[in-house]
Amino acid sequence: MVIEDTNFLDHKKQAIQNLQSALQQDEVDAIINSLLKKINNLQEYYTTSSCAGRILVLQLPEIGDKKHASFLGRWHRKVTEKEIRDSMLSFMEGQLWLLTQPPIFHIGCKTLSAADILMKIGINSGFKHSGIRSLSGQIIVELQSTERMDMPLGKEGEIIVPNSLLSFLIETANTALLRAQKKLIRLETEIEIL
Amino acid sequence: MVIEDTNFLDHKKQAIQNLQSALQQDEVDAIINSLLKKINNLQEYYTTSSCAGRILVLQLPEIGDKKHASFLGRWHRKVTEKEIRDSMLSFMEGQLWLLTQPPIFHIGCKTLSAADILMKIGINSGFKHSGIRSLSGQIIVELQSTERMDMPLGKEGEIIVPNSLLSFLIETANTALLRAQKKLIRLETEIEIL
Repeated sequence: MVIEDTNFLDHKKQAIQNLQSALQQDEVDAIINSLLKKINNLQEYYTTSSCAGRILVLQLPEIGDKKHASFLGRWHRKVTEKEIRDSMLSFMEGQLWLLTQPPIFHIGCKTLSAADILMKIGINSGFKHSGIRSLSGQIIVELQSTERMDMPLGKEGEIIVPNSLLSFLIETANTALLRAQKKLIRLETEIEIL
Repeated sequence: MVIEDTNFLDHKKQAIQNLQSALQQDEVDAIINSLLKKINNLQEYYTTSSCAGRILVLQLPEIGDKKHASFLGRWHRKVTEKEIRDSMLSFMEGQLWLLTQPPIFHIGCKTLSAADILMKIGINSGFKHSGIRSLSGQIIVELQSTERMDMPLGKEGEIIVPNSLLSFLIETANTALLRAQKKLIRLETEIEIL
């Protein structure tokens, strides 16, 4: 257990390299680029893994078995009904799900005290599900908000959600994502004054 | 920020009193009674708030606005279709949701080192969403597993999920709860050897 990361600069250097490589491969969602940059510009922090929030169409063998899930569709923004319907065409077996997952950030901290400050900033910005997730070697804080949707669309390879309902589910998935992504602005403002 | 709770015994005494009072009012789910007792019997820990996992029928003004949610139904066990349908009769306005929430425990720890050990035990027992949630005065670890469902059933006061789909959604909610509650046994075994 550590209360100060003695290899902080090495950890930060490695994390920044990983981020650069992800940016080059266009794997970082544009909506969080400036926020990540601001966090990494702070002396006591670096970002490890992050997601701007996403809408997923997933095929999985059984509920909760995310290890064996196939992504049929993945978007970090509002989706259209056509996009969802097109992705559903690849559904072959097991269960089909439509998910909204809120933004999530994993942030390395130099000290426990820095972690505590960041955790409070997260909670104040609406990232209510924030906490220190690791004290082993690195000190990692997770910031996550709470807007979620988990809706089964099919089972045993068959779509069971009627057409008429699908529009509402997609609208709800979009609303959840946009509501969660609005909090990114609050978080960025709080980070700026740190 | 604290790395050792200097008022640990006072905090523990208060927490045990609160638990006794909750037990007397039958507010603690029987399925977690022995686990809570085992945690509180450990010198370095006490439980503050806990839930055995639950299935909820919620009415809320808009998505994510849980502050203004009304509980139309709440069960810490598998539900029947009739129970869910009966609770849905009280749906009047806004959105209607069917939720499964996994077991959750908030545990006060004497030291940061004790918190780190507990967090690792949680993760090893399948409570993958575990972390330190507070270092202000008390050191609080949250243990939570990941089986969650947030399924919309209606909007603008009207149920829009067809009858035929509802059975499957209820079955899904039950499966998620039972899958999550199975992990309580693993957690209790890990706590026993602490």
